[in-house]
Amino acid sequence: MPDTIFSKLIRGEIPCHRVYENEHVLAFLDVNPISPGHTLLIPKEPAVTFADLSPDAAAALGRALPALCRAVQEATGCAGYNLLQNNGPVAGQLVMHAHIHIIPRTQGDHLDMPWPAKALALGPELAATIRAALNRLNQAK
Amino acid sequence: MPDTIFSKLIRGEIPCHRVYENEHVLAFLDVNPISPGHTLLIPKEPAVTFADLSPDAAAALGRALPALCRAVQEATGCAGYNLLQNNGPVAGQLVMHAHIHIIPRTQGDHLDMPWPAKALALGPELAATIRAALNRLNQAK
Repeated sequence: MPDTIFSKLIRGEIPCHRVYENEHVLAFLDVNPISPGHTLLIPKEPAVTFADLSPDAAAALGRALPALCRAVQEATGCAGYNLLQNNGPVAGQLVMHAHIHIIPRTQGDHLDMPWPAKALALGPELAATIRAALNRLNQAK
Repeated sequence: MPDTIFSKLIRGEIPCHRVYENEHVLAFLDVNPISPGHTLLIPKEPAVTFADLSPDAAAALGRALPALCRAVQEATGCAGYNLLQNNGPVAGQLVMHAHIHIIPRTQGDHLDMPWPAKALALGPELAATIRAALNRLNQAK
């Protein structure tokens, strides 16, 4: 995996507005916030996407999130927040080191997500295909 | 916390297209997918938002995600995917039991997210406010 700006932040080679750090994760303010308090949580383990993370590194991200979300909410007074994590350029990923956005939301912030939903088709077949892929992945471990 | 459709899914009172389940989490197909393979991962622990989750339940969600993301990607052949988690009605939360969307993405799917970013203002002050909130939360434990 190539070096990214986030590897440099983890190594302390460039500064950031750090809000939390432990052995496994680092959280800091996004320098181009979508809303005030927009925070990024990243694993110290190098991984491009969430699927590339070890289960332990992914668990550490999950474990850090509840208190971090509460702190962002208290500090900003936001009414709610989105967690967003983009995997792959097609999904809007810009830095090729996995990162979770915490995006505070307020009434009237005009952060709409015009993603239309459809009715599920071929649910049993699709679920079986995903279960089979999971089984293959678990057997390959 | 009031009962939701997801509590009923967890208890097996209503059916779903299940793709994964363990002691702590359940994953199933969204019945109103934004794209083919749109999957939901939920904690069995009752919690309205991510901030309401226990650290252990949040860690279990993180731990389940990498393999689940890989399986959804293999099964759908998608080029990437977004993880999205909406907390509070203002953030688009519709079911009041915390849930993570896995949304497969393909070139030309027109799932744009027109969320404008700004330059960060008052970064040091904001980071200090979030750190102080985290410290209060940790001391209150």
